[in-house]
Amino acid sequence: MDKYQQIIHLTDNMQEKLIEQRRDFHRYAEGGWREIRTSSRIARELQELGYQVLVGEAVCRRDARMGVPDADTLAQEYQRAIAQGADPEFAEQMQQGMTGVIAILRCGEGPTVAMRFDIDALGVIEAATAEHRPAAEGFASVNPGFMHACGHDGHAAIGLGVANVLARLRDQLHGTVKLIFQPAEEGVRGAKAIVANGHLDDVQYLLGAHISDKEADDPAVVIPGSYGSLATTKYDVVFHGRSAHAGSSQHLGKNVMPVLATAILNLYAIPHHGDGETRINVGVVHAGSGRNVVADEARMEIEVRGETTELNHYMQEHATRIIAHAAQMYDCRYELQLMGEADSLHSDTELAARIAAVCCEKLQLQPAEVLLNHNSGSEDFSYMMNRVQEMGGQASFMRVLTVTAGPAHNRYFDFDEQVLPNAVKIFCATACNILS
Amino acid sequence: MDKYQQIIHLTDNMQEKLIEQRRDFHRYAEGGWREIRTSSRIARELQELGYQVLVGEAVCRRDARMGVPDADTLAQEYQRAIAQGADPEFAEQMQQGMTGVIAILRCGEGPTVAMRFDIDALGVIEAATAEHRPAAEGFASVNPGFMHACGHDGHAAIGLGVANVLARLRDQLHGTVKLIFQPAEEGVRGAKAIVANGHLDDVQYLLGAHISDKEADDPAVVIPGSYGSLATTKYDVVFHGRSAHAGSSQHLGKNVMPVLATAILNLYAIPHHGDGETRINVGVVHAGSGRNVVADEARMEIEVRGETTELNHYMQEHATRIIAHAAQMYDCRYELQLMGEADSLHSDTELAARIAAVCCEKLQLQPAEVLLNHNSGSEDFSYMMNRVQEMGGQASFMRVLTVTAGPAHNRYFDFDEQVLPNAVKIFCATACNILS
Amino acid sequence: MDKYQQIIHLTDNMQEKLIEQRRDFHRYAEGGWREIRTSSRIARELQELGYQVLVGEAVCRRDARMGVPDADTLAQEYQRAIAQGADPEFAEQMQQGMTGVIAILRCGEGPTVAMRFDIDALGVIEAATAEHRPAAEGFASVNPGFMHACGHDGHAAIGLGVANVLARLRDQLHGTVKLIFQPAEEGVRGAKAIVANGHLDDVQYLLGAHISDKEADDPAVVIPGSYGSLATTKYDVVFHGRSAHAGSSQHLGKNVMPVLATAILNLYAIPHHGDGETRINVGVVHAGSGRNVVADEARMEIEVRGETTELNHYMQEHATRIIAHAAQMYDCRYELQLMGEADSLHSDTELAARIAAVCCEKLQLQPAEVLLNHNSGSEDFSYMMNRVQEMGGQASFMRVLTVTAGPAHNRYFDFDEQVLPNAVKIFCATACNILS
Amino acid sequence: MDKYQQIIHLTDNMQEKLIEQRRDFHRYAEGGWREIRTSSRIARELQELGYQVLVGEAVCRRDARMGVPDADTLAQEYQRAIAQGADPEFAEQMQQGMTGVIAILRCGEGPTVAMRFDIDALGVIEAATAEHRPAAEGFASVNPGFMHACGHDGHAAIGLGVANVLARLRDQLHGTVKLIFQPAEEGVRGAKAIVANGHLDDVQYLLGAHISDKEADDPAVVIPGSYGSLATTKYDVVFHGRSAHAGSSQHLGKNVMPVLATAILNLYAIPHHGDGETRINVGVVHAGSGRNVVADEARMEIEVRGETTELNHYMQEHATRIIAHAAQMYDCRYELQLMGEADSLHSDTELAARIAAVCCEKLQLQPAEVLLNHNSGSEDFSYMMNRVQEMGGQASFMRVLTVTAGPAHNRYFDFDEQVLPNAVKIFCATACNILS
Repeated sequence: MDKYQQIIHLTDNMQEKLIEQRRDFHRYAEGGWREIRTSSRIARELQELGYQVLVGEAVCRRDARMGVPDADTLAQEYQRAIAQGADPEFAEQMQQGMTGVIAILRCGEGPTVAMRFDIDALGVIEAATAEHRPAAEGFASVNPGFMHACGHDGHAAIGLGVANVLARLRDQLHGTVKLIFQPAEEGVRGAKAIVANGHLDDVQYLLGAHISDKEADDPAVVIPGSYGSLATTKYDVVFHGRSAHAGSSQHLGKNVMPVLATAILNLYAIPHHGDGETRINVGVVHAGSGRNVVADEARMEIEVRGETTELNHYMQEHATRIIAHAAQMYDCRYELQLMGEADSLHSDTELAARIAAVCCEKLQLQPAEVLLNHNSGSEDFSYMMNRVQEMGGQASFMRVLTVTAGPAHNRYFDFDEQVLPNAVKIFCATACNILS
Repeated sequence: MDKYQQIIHLTDNMQEKLIEQRRDFHRYAEGGWREIRTSSRIARELQELGYQVLVGEAVCRRDARMGVPDADTLAQEYQRAIAQGADPEFAEQMQQGMTGVIAILRCGEGPTVAMRFDIDALGVIEAATAEHRPAAEGFASVNPGFMHACGHDGHAAIGLGVANVLARLRDQLHGTVKLIFQPAEEGVRGAKAIVANGHLDDVQYLLGAHISDKEADDPAVVIPGSYGSLATTKYDVVFHGRSAHAGSSQHLGKNVMPVLATAILNLYAIPHHGDGETRINVGVVHAGSGRNVVADEARMEIEVRGETTELNHYMQEHATRIIAHAAQMYDCRYELQLMGEADSLHSDTELAARIAAVCCEKLQLQPAEVLLNHNSGSEDFSYMMNRVQEMGGQASFMRVLTVTAGPAHNRYFDFDEQVLPNAVKIFCATACNILS
Repeated sequence: MDKYQQIIHLTDNMQEKLIEQRRDFHRYAEGGWREIRTSSRIARELQELGYQVLVGEAVCRRDARMGVPDADTLAQEYQRAIAQGADPEFAEQMQQGMTGVIAILRCGEGPTVAMRFDIDALGVIEAATAEHRPAAEGFASVNPGFMHACGHDGHAAIGLGVANVLARLRDQLHGTVKLIFQPAEEGVRGAKAIVANGHLDDVQYLLGAHISDKEADDPAVVIPGSYGSLATTKYDVVFHGRSAHAGSSQHLGKNVMPVLATAILNLYAIPHHGDGETRINVGVVHAGSGRNVVADEARMEIEVRGETTELNHYMQEHATRIIAHAAQMYDCRYELQLMGEADSLHSDTELAARIAAVCCEKLQLQPAEVLLNHNSGSEDFSYMMNRVQEMGGQASFMRVLTVTAGPAHNRYFDFDEQVLPNAVKIFCATACNILS
Repeated sequence: MDKYQQIIHLTDNMQEKLIEQRRDFHRYAEGGWREIRTSSRIARELQELGYQVLVGEAVCRRDARMGVPDADTLAQEYQRAIAQGADPEFAEQMQQGMTGVIAILRCGEGPTVAMRFDIDALGVIEAATAEHRPAAEGFASVNPGFMHACGHDGHAAIGLGVANVLARLRDQLHGTVKLIFQPAEEGVRGAKAIVANGHLDDVQYLLGAHISDKEADDPAVVIPGSYGSLATTKYDVVFHGRSAHAGSSQHLGKNVMPVLATAILNLYAIPHHGDGETRINVGVVHAGSGRNVVADEARMEIEVRGETTELNHYMQEHATRIIAHAAQMYDCRYELQLMGEADSLHSDTELAARIAAVCCEKLQLQPAEVLLNHNSGSEDFSYMMNRVQEMGGQASFMRVLTVTAGPAHNRYFDFDEQVLPNAVKIFCATACNILS
């Protein structure tokens, strides 16, 4: 058996374990910066496999994390995670949002191949009806308000599968394997903090993947190349005015309601850009304290996107100017907090083609055509890719395809678990191909 | 001793009890349609004093109540009230928002004098600091989120004081005394339902009062006449759109955010009216479910006001048209729920002057000049006044003055309790004057 | 015959001349700062009557005039006025918007009584149909686009009548008569420039009047006191952006259209003021150069008003802040030009009562009750009144009543000319009463 | 000499005439539906060349024309055109906006090749400075407010050149030549009316071209394929309200200013579409009659665009709904007038490649790569292309490149006239290639 046959064989044998682990992660869904149970159990397994394991401060640079929950919430989450079976030794280092794991396997001289697996759940209430398989089969989320509705439970299980296979093939590899289990990808909050700690600086090849819906009768199992390529920035905005009685003394207040309304309309009216697609969304607003009181505080959660990082900057510049002057128009103050950010994402043609070739020739898995520009959603994996590309390396994203139930981010989301072994094989085979 | 001297004497003797009762109501603050403890204990005392007591369905017409909390909330509030010492017999009839008490004392031939006392607390979190006397002296609200921050605790105590004094003078009275302990005045939600049950149809004279701030060195203790005379309507608005992913498919959504913003700006832009003052306020808005999701639901709490009922109708007409077309502009639906309403309020000069004369001549209490048009806030006592005036009777509102701490509706609100006996005397003396 | 009988007699004898002069002014209607024919002919007549006559630089301070047309327009207007029979000698000094006349008659020791008569027409196209008397009887405006639709033709004729009568009574007067024929009252552009030259500093008594509609069967011919008492400020606003092709490169432009829209909505949304009435109007907008071009220029003509000068300042402050930040929101520039301004106007009760008494006792003309606060429109006579009042003098405005056709500012406006002798008598009799 | 060599030879010999004719059209620039001098002189020359010539009702279907000026304007334009040397016989049939010419040359059996040349000028005031060659050399527009600032003067001259060359080669052609001189392309107002008359129904091959800027050092002289491919719709909107005095009685008016502002902001805020580019522009607005009058009329000139006709429909649907409900929000009426329209434009790859091959092989002119999707501006040539493609034919647009001064639509626009013979050769050689 050559290396590729071994990969196929090893992976096929761990199919049940992959499913079991995916369902375990699904059941104990943890949101961004709260993935203590998930991270600590991953760390434990990786250590047992012989990887050098980094956790806590060693993974994310503390001050480069975005959108971190408050300290009280995180303290409660730590208690919850411990109660739900977190590994106590590792968990201790992961308190207060220091989640995520990096695992390194040195196999002599050769290039470094990094692979990224994101592990966080979404803020979605999971469906409890019988038609939803996780509910029917007892692995729906036990953490109310959090659900793996985007497949990161699968990503985490795939990462562990890859770790297992490659650990067994280590004698045949030449170079270094680096596995990155990234926290807080939802809201694009975590990747930048891993890059900030220098973990991508020594990487020559970088691979990442997302589980994605396939046409049921399409034989392709992977689309090498870009996915989620819009650059994006997420802001929380607070407007501060002054309250007053709305009946007798409106004029003594500084009303944030027209500020909010002016901001919303003008944000949506930012001019279209001739160089490509842009997006803006005001997703959530909360304002005011009582019907008969001039509102003195308004909160907005917004995001901008652009087909390129430059187009995203164009949107940022317009959005921040609109927010500033909407506030000043009514002599109000405002605060703007960066809650997440991702660059646009451009896979290297050469590496994407290599993935396709490996799938086709070594794994008898059908790849789709390489697709370099699909603009849908955003991914902070872009930060890792951009860093590797800046340093002269190659990076590629890919979509691993499977039949799904419900669109992503929906409370009925689920997927055919056959994607798990497929993805393990693609990662391992491509890594082996590079590390030969 | 003549009647007026008896009133003074009886009231001065019950000063401690007035304070004790006011503080008891303050401590067990109950919001609108939740005043089960307050109402049931009032009903018990009135029954013991010999009044004919109406409670439950007999007070408010069920379907004319506005802004009633949902059934679950009310069920919980019933449990809370029982636990806090509600009178079980009366309380049972007050479940599901059927609060309020009407008490009648028939004293032979003569006119009917009604007096209104409102009894509900506000949705305010009471201050817990030592500078706030209710906190320092242990009678701050034990019901989190509810506080008597507008003096209705005092109004309830005054009403019981009036009931006590008049019960003792009943042999000297000629006519009928009707005491109305109104629920849900905050948000102007309750009076209309009492009028709808016909309780004002047989009333020739109607008195109402509100505790109000005085200049510390001003000797006046009462301003007979209007207060809170703006007509008003309160609406809750819900806009329904359709959600979609904000990055890839905004065009598949129906975004309520620009609907909301368009509504807010245009509501504030309703043209000023040449015939008098108008007001509009968008007090509270909540919209959207996630930053990267096209928002499919927005809620607004708004109110309009007018110096006259006609001006209020002008505002209503404009506001509802703006809301309808803001929604339709984006092919969205909307719902408009009436949450409260009050007419404008016009005291009868003759009755107001009579109050002033009684204060001056019989009680040696200093009245201020009669003030017929003070436009500040709104009062649903107007419905009762309008009904009495329509039927040929006279009605007057008055402000009873005292030194206050903090503005009304503020979490530090408190007042000098000397106002309690003063108000009892003014109500009783005016009623006796009429019923002589 | 006493003085008052002489006034009645002299005025009754000049009735035809009053009508003739009013119709002459009506026929040659001249807009603000263009009243060269009107002013120069007034000056000629006043000089012939023996008054000291001030024209040109001596009347308005050049740089305190507001809303002055451009130099080319004014040069053309000069040619037109000459062609229409302006007095060439006086007209020469009135070029370039230096119109208006002040005439002084010194009659020995005594106080100074000033009377103001405004002389400009409106920018209205006069009706040409037979039902409109000026058209039917041949005295409709020959200057297209200008019409005396507010009665200032009558005011000018009244002023000349007053000048005639008082000149004949000069031996019986003790003090000084100052007649002010003010240009550019429409748009409240002229009075401030006369005050700025100090002409009101030595005045003890100031009278002004406006022809006004009466109920046909009401015997009253004058309402002494305030009229047009809203303070007001008029601005022209220009927004400057940058044009770009709307199809290919919107992002290269700076679009003034959303700036304009944001300004309009927020200007109308300035909070109502608890202390009294406020108004705002965006009367005229012009923006953009072509359908497919990002607009780079927008012009707005706006005005704010307030029941008091303070309330007007409140509106100014809000309006200018909104305009500034609407522009900056899109990185655009703006210019704000003051086009007119008037304070609120408060007549002195004593002087208003004196007018009423003189009418009643000396003239057998029926005065209405003194009315001190009627808020409708604005008047820059307020600047003159405020200056006199500041210096310790008394001032009163009045409405002289007559049957009118069409509302003021309408192209069908006309009035019963009986008002002309009535007004002459009231001015003269009041002045004589003061100068006795 | 083969046909292609003859084309080169004939064209090179007419170079001076091409320039002369282009400058003549430039000097007598005529806007859309006003091209009487231009059309009538073209018709005369084509008739002399032996073409069957259609004018007047035979060209455009009267009721399918869009954005036609009013009758008075057109009557004046007819007088102007006659005075400027229009051919009287043809001009007579072109009155009231019935401009444009179609010329047919039948050359036996074979396919029909149609070529479109647009002939109208833009509403631009031409630069008069020496740096602008048309001004310096005496061929600047003599019609104030109209200028050939988009090269249609060149297009018309090219069309006549093509007519000349093909007339001389007629014996060597097999099939039919149809030359379409289209009026009113600016504002995309004319093509639809020609299609509506069936002129494209029998066409197998359709060619069109636009003069376009080249990089100075780029040898390419033509880009076969699409240009200006955005679908577009142009509307004029009028909002009707009710005027009122802004100081005393705003409430009696129906103010179109907030209607206008609401429409503008929401038009710009139409959601971006996930399927491709969209555009909106509010290019021109005029509203209101006086500063102190509630505005009762507002006019907007707007346009929407979409990368496809479907996306343009999406924009139309949103825009018309926004306009309708902005009006109704203030109880105002509105009118929406269609002023121009174009579909998106998709060249046939095969025909575009054929143009490239002919240029390269037969003319030694350097073509650029075929470019099928360049989204910039709009072209109503799309209607003609779509009709031909629907009927099974092929169509291609192309950009003929030259050095230009000033961007298109700018008052300094001019171009290197070498483009004229180049374009004549490309049209003729491609037509010959098809008609061989």
